[in-house]
Amino acid sequence: MALSFDHRTLGQRVLFGTDAAADNVATAVGDLGGQRVLLVADAAAPEVVARILERVPVAARIDEVVQHVPVENAEAAVRLAREVDADLVLTVGGGSATGLGKVVARDTALPLVAVPTTFAGSEATDVWGQTEDGRKVTGSDPRVLPRAIIYDAALSRSLPAGLATASGMNALAHAVDGFWAPRADPINRALGTEGIRALVPGLRRLSADPDDLGAREQTLYGAYLAAVAFASAGSGIHHKICHTLGGAYNLSHAEMHAIVLPYVTAFVAPAAPDAAGRVSRALGGVPAGPGLLALRAELGIPAGLRDLGMREGDIAEAAELALPSIPPSTPRPVGLNDLTTLLRAAWAGAPLEEVTA
Amino acid sequence: MALSFDHRTLGQRVLFGTDAAADNVATAVGDLGGQRVLLVADAAAPEVVARILERVPVAARIDEVVQHVPVENAEAAVRLAREVDADLVLTVGGGSATGLGKVVARDTALPLVAVPTTFAGSEATDVWGQTEDGRKVTGSDPRVLPRAIIYDAALSRSLPAGLATASGMNALAHAVDGFWAPRADPINRALGTEGIRALVPGLRRLSADPDDLGAREQTLYGAYLAAVAFASAGSGIHHKICHTLGGAYNLSHAEMHAIVLPYVTAFVAPAAPDAAGRVSRALGGVPAGPGLLALRAELGIPAGLRDLGMREGDIAEAAELALPSIPPSTPRPVGLNDLTTLLRAAWAGAPLEEVTA
Repeated sequence: MALSFDHRTLGQRVLFGTDAAADNVATAVGDLGGQRVLLVADAAAPEVVARILERVPVAARIDEVVQHVPVENAEAAVRLAREVDADLVLTVGGGSATGLGKVVARDTALPLVAVPTTFAGSEATDVWGQTEDGRKVTGSDPRVLPRAIIYDAALSRSLPAGLATASGMNALAHAVDGFWAPRADPINRALGTEGIRALVPGLRRLSADPDDLGAREQTLYGAYLAAVAFASAGSGIHHKICHTLGGAYNLSHAEMHAIVLPYVTAFVAPAAPDAAGRVSRALGGVPAGPGLLALRAELGIPAGLRDLGMREGDIAEAAELALPSIPPSTPRPVGLNDLTTLLRAAWAGAPLEEVTA
Repeated sequence: MALSFDHRTLGQRVLFGTDAAADNVATAVGDLGGQRVLLVADAAAPEVVARILERVPVAARIDEVVQHVPVENAEAAVRLAREVDADLVLTVGGGSATGLGKVVARDTALPLVAVPTTFAGSEATDVWGQTEDGRKVTGSDPRVLPRAIIYDAALSRSLPAGLATASGMNALAHAVDGFWAPRADPINRALGTEGIRALVPGLRRLSADPDDLGAREQTLYGAYLAAVAFASAGSGIHHKICHTLGGAYNLSHAEMHAIVLPYVTAFVAPAAPDAAGRVSRALGGVPAGPGLLALRAELGIPAGLRDLGMREGDIAEAAELALPSIPPSTPRPVGLNDLTTLLRAAWAGAPLEEVTA
């Protein structure tokens, strides 16, 4: 088979070290020449924020971080950056803190340094998002890609174990769905495979012992690679389905991904033997779909979308809404019946046979 | 073991496609807004250069490409770029063509697009080199990193099979030596592993059938990943030894790397079981050192440095010259006796037992 692809590698520095966040922030900010830093920090890691304030020249600080980056907050942050003549934006926190920093970087062209406290992966992408009149707007822009990421597994301790493992399954979905996404190529497949190899044992250990810092390191490292692979490969069928469900029915984000992933994988796997083999090997040799289903159960994540509050009556509508967005890169044809069957099974937490039969 | 690293990913676009070089050059140059292109092209791929000239606005062309980038040639190229008010530098050819383009990009800050015709890998690094008064000077600069690489396996047909496989073994050395290089980290290890997985079967197929374009694709893809891993991880003991040998005794570059690599690997492997395992698995399960030695023989590359013209009397001096440069990241202590033994074995093409005993 001829090898043909158009791959874009995003240039970033990644500083990884447990209990080293403040030191690594000082290094990264110093190397970028930051003298007047705008700090955006949510409530996740107050001790680290305090240590950062001792070492980094912070000109202004935003600690009100609102979900989904409302445009009013974004505009206020941009104004503040200009008022204090900031020369660098530093975020510490979850996806909303990173997201606010990205919009400031987009509008000011200031370099951005991100210290993530979750496994969401936004720090590895050049995608920004904000909410205007209750509507989410997204775009991509090279200016919003953080110049440096500081990973510190100790910071994810602010995530309760249940949320941490669901967030890790969401990261796993980035890598798995990337295998059949529109811009899938050998490079992002290799990175995604390495991400899965770290995530699966990391999540198992984290679920067994939430205080296992080594498990958090493995999960964080795997989540980063999965995000890199996803940023490169784009959204596959799994993310298109979940985007529809999330937008229309306001379901809990990470758990929704964890629930849907095994069904999508079981549906696609027969037509994607290479991808299925990669997932299967990382799971210790069990087939990809059943292995992901068992992992979800092992992590204590609810089995069906109905457990997240979705109503049975919404399944047909959800399938119709999702259908036009299913990417042509999906390795098998997808009709309305396929989507309805898949969503019904995921809604009920039914056996996978319902989507593979 | 705690995970701790400082990784830099270099941002580049990679367009890969056989017989697609001219189209992909037009795409990459167009996306970068190139209107007045300075073309640097050696003699490797005249047909592709002709097709590129039809589609790309070339303002000036340099087709005298000299090995090792003499500073006079570099200065003349920079002057030409300024005279014609070039807005992009495009190179087509081997390492010397890429190298000349890099120096122009360094001095003019123009974006660089590289079309490599060998497996040397310079296009994936931010390292430039030039020769002044017979002395090689190198440095790294973000401006010299090509913004886009165009890979076309058909172009490597200009490399005779023997040179192609030696060049591929040199690429293999980038990946293997990266496993124990100063900035080795999990990310560049994963990329290097993927590179080896492509290079080993690619080289075997290429050696069996020089006209096998699929084999050239695999080799080219693997060589790219190996170069990315090497650019990130830095030079390990193998490259420090070969740098000494190359500088002092003017040995054929790619063959020298192919000859030395099995000996270095056999020497280091007992202290680097993870790396040895990665190499071994890519070689089909045989131990890393013997597997590389067998591969070198299978590819018809000479067995010993004496076959390249090195004199036995130079071994002791070479060991002394190399010793101070051996990186502390090398997984086992290296003394003068170790280096002398290793170089004597590589000189003679002796059995590996001489370095592992």
